[in-house]
Amino acid sequence: MARRTGRRPGNPDTREAILAAARTAFAERGFDAASIRAIATAAGVDPALVHHYFGTKEELFRSTMNVPIDPAELLPRVLAGGPDGVGQRLVRTFLGVWDSPAGGAAVALLRSAVNNEWTARMMREFLVTQVLRRVLDHLDIDPAELPLRGSLVATQMLGLAMTRYVVRLEPVASADPETLAAAIGPTVQRYLTGDLSA
Amino acid sequence: MARRTGRRPGNPDTREAILAAARTAFAERGFDAASIRAIATAAGVDPALVHHYFGTKEELFRSTMNVPIDPAELLPRVLAGGPDGVGQRLVRTFLGVWDSPAGGAAVALLRSAVNNEWTARMMREFLVTQVLRRVLDHLDIDPAELPLRGSLVATQMLGLAMTRYVVRLEPVASADPETLAAAIGPTVQRYLTGDLSA
Repeated sequence: MARRTGRRPGNPDTREAILAAARTAFAERGFDAASIRAIATAAGVDPALVHHYFGTKEELFRSTMNVPIDPAELLPRVLAGGPDGVGQRLVRTFLGVWDSPAGGAAVALLRSAVNNEWTARMMREFLVTQVLRRVLDHLDIDPAELPLRGSLVATQMLGLAMTRYVVRLEPVASADPETLAAAIGPTVQRYLTGDLSA
Repeated sequence: MARRTGRRPGNPDTREAILAAARTAFAERGFDAASIRAIATAAGVDPALVHHYFGTKEELFRSTMNVPIDPAELLPRVLAGGPDGVGQRLVRTFLGVWDSPAGGAAVALLRSAVNNEWTARMMREFLVTQVLRRVLDHLDIDPAELPLRGSLVATQMLGLAMTRYVVRLEPVASADPETLAAAIGPTVQRYLTGDLSA
């Protein structure tokens, strides 16, 4: 995980103003269309200050959502080794994060997204731009199929999170990660690279 | 759907007392262990009155959760035709319910379960005793594998509901049911009857 040693915590009011402007921009315009420049203008600060406090646009986005992990650092492990077995590696990595102390924040985010349209929109943007897009970009997939494949993966991963951490249905709630990776990995693999017609 | 034509609405206070006692019993003891007799005692009424107002224990359970559909009436359609294709029929039937006006209550229940441990417990009981058990009982499955298979099906179905109705991630959010049944049916089929090792 990147330690932002080079960055100063900065003025708390300024930080909060930037975060508030960023949340609005990401939720209303989406991650791609929201610009650091526009966020800085809305917060009444110089764009350089946004970068100084929060780093890249990706890092700012994760800060607005209190996401303590960086998909850009985890996903290379999932993608190394090519398309074969990527489903199982994705499930294993996902469980590694959600089972760890960082998982508490993820569960909190999931709970919030369910009852708050605004958080749901942020979660959607996060899933698509920070996770699914990175995975799908590394696989040799027909671009026309990317959205459906990506959102099918989301159905399985969101459902795994809901069942294991929120509804806590046994035995999924306390199964060891390897059992789940073996059972669920092939589902994710098929959604990513397999035949989707019945 | 069963119209309870033979049942009187009854005294609202008595109905509420029975429902409150039933909710506590189902959440604390689970569906199987909760008895109509104990619920009646807790509500201070005769067990016959519970049946008179709410019908069977299954119907009382659905009333406590405001579940407007009866899995016992829908599932025979899913199960008719045997194990082949049961996954696809389950997804199709599930979407038929959730896409219908009755789906609003289901989404409300899902939202509530996420932020309320008590509702989550009720939802767990409902999934296991009213849906998964009925499906699994009709398939020729090793009883030792039932819990894992059932909760794996739950991961996919809960995730489909979350993605389509709550987070509303496209294209799953507005895909036609047949596309989703073709894509997701084989997953459910494998969780029910297939090989779960990688």
